[in-house]
Amino acid sequence: MKICRSIESLAEALAERGQRRVGFVPTMGFLHAGHLSLVKQCREDNDLAVVSIYVNPAQFGRNEDLDRYPRDPQRDIALLENERTDLLFLPDSGAMYPPGYATYVSVEGLDAVLCGASRPGHFRGVATVVLQLFNLVRPQRAYFGQKDAQQAIVIRRLVRDLHLPVQVIVMPIVRDSDGLALSSRNVYLAPAERLAALHLPQALQRADALVRSGVLDSRAIRTAMRNELERDPLLASEYIAIVGLPDLLETPVVDLNNTLIAAAVRVGRTRLIDNLLLGDLSC
Amino acid sequence: MKICRSIESLAEALAERGQRRVGFVPTMGFLHAGHLSLVKQCREDNDLAVVSIYVNPAQFGRNEDLDRYPRDPQRDIALLENERTDLLFLPDSGAMYPPGYATYVSVEGLDAVLCGASRPGHFRGVATVVLQLFNLVRPQRAYFGQKDAQQAIVIRRLVRDLHLPVQVIVMPIVRDSDGLALSSRNVYLAPAERLAALHLPQALQRADALVRSGVLDSRAIRTAMRNELERDPLLASEYIAIVGLPDLLETPVVDLNNTLIAAAVRVGRTRLIDNLLLGDLSC
Repeated sequence: MKICRSIESLAEALAERGQRRVGFVPTMGFLHAGHLSLVKQCREDNDLAVVSIYVNPAQFGRNEDLDRYPRDPQRDIALLENERTDLLFLPDSGAMYPPGYATYVSVEGLDAVLCGASRPGHFRGVATVVLQLFNLVRPQRAYFGQKDAQQAIVIRRLVRDLHLPVQVIVMPIVRDSDGLALSSRNVYLAPAERLAALHLPQALQRADALVRSGVLDSRAIRTAMRNELERDPLLASEYIAIVGLPDLLETPVVDLNNTLIAAAVRVGRTRLIDNLLLGDLSC
Repeated sequence: MKICRSIESLAEALAERGQRRVGFVPTMGFLHAGHLSLVKQCREDNDLAVVSIYVNPAQFGRNEDLDRYPRDPQRDIALLENERTDLLFLPDSGAMYPPGYATYVSVEGLDAVLCGASRPGHFRGVATVVLQLFNLVRPQRAYFGQKDAQQAIVIRRLVRDLHLPVQVIVMPIVRDSDGLALSSRNVYLAPAERLAALHLPQALQRADALVRSGVLDSRAIRTAMRNELERDPLLASEYIAIVGLPDLLETPVVDLNNTLIAAAVRVGRTRLIDNLLLGDLSC
């Protein structure tokens, strides 16, 4: 695996791509099996599998966890070697925003709801760094996890609006054996918090059971989810959203082919998200 | 000359580009000799000369002249044929912002000063449409007029920040025989307004004469320019800026290699801009 630590060396390494199909997995590192499922698919679909690890400062709010976000590049490198990654882009923290950097991309509307409502500027940071990375790597395909469903929807819209020649592929959520969706931030959880956090996937399981039993009324589903989330005082619900795709507008009735049921909670200082997707996010 | 009226037909026409070097001149039409100087250079430098004509709604403010902006596509087509343009992209007014369009690009800081101060959102609209057009046309070189110097600076920053593989070439201001910089908006001017408007290039000539005589104090230059602009009550000065490149920050002393002296005025309902460039805007 070739490791490029600067934009210049990445550009140089990719100049020799020729006609090879390039797949790309952008990450913030501290890789888990969710990330690796993206890398495996990327490896399978393409001639050249490119992964980036960059904890993107522009997508963190002032009071968020940029400084303490978990990092373990040596372990990540070993995991990526093991998945036969061809190229790892591992730039310095300031590399994507050099002095004088001024250009930011917003996917308006989509960036203001759900996680965007509680994390102003977050999706502007995501869209900006992903656009930069897409322009540097120029992949035919890019892989994102469904756990960050809103992120995938924002990127999908960005790709369409800006005519980027990249296929966005969204892979299913990977869960731990207890049901918690894998996230680099799970490492923050103390044991009691981890137990409390399980009410998040359980709330989504309740929503899933209701929908499967024919209950499509969003209010009834939201109430059942809220009841589940309120069962542990360590957990505070941030939002429960039942929204249509691709516009993320609240819907009173679930469309079985086109709905995202998503929730965010706080467990202690840790913010966790999870969702249930009825439909398809890829493009 | 091939004329593409949709994004799809443009993509199809450019798919056959092979190894040919593509040059691109984005315009809002109602072409004059300034535009044509860009097309000539584009024709000279590249294998394929692509021009777009699109009156971009996103770069007009609510109370601006979008509706009355001059248009004459038949005349434009004849002029471009005459310059041996290979391809004209002439989309419908809504084509670049279809229903659900959400993605906007801002070049922050640079978009808030000079013309950006009086036209909020203007450069966001410019940056957004130019990024879309660059992604569709994928030119090796793109041509802009120095008359819109701030626009060229914004695009140059956008290109650098987003790692776009395009060379930005800025061509000199083309003037009418009376000294007025060519602009599609000059057609708005009544005869008395046209005479009043000449104080704009004359103010820049005074600045140029002062600089050449060794006067580098911005305050003295600005005073001389203001005196010139105040000579006709039909003309109202909007701004006189003496700024460094590429950051467009006011400078107390002119750097002969790196300064933009720019002014905007209103003559009746018509807004006009002009500038004197000490240095180079291309990249």
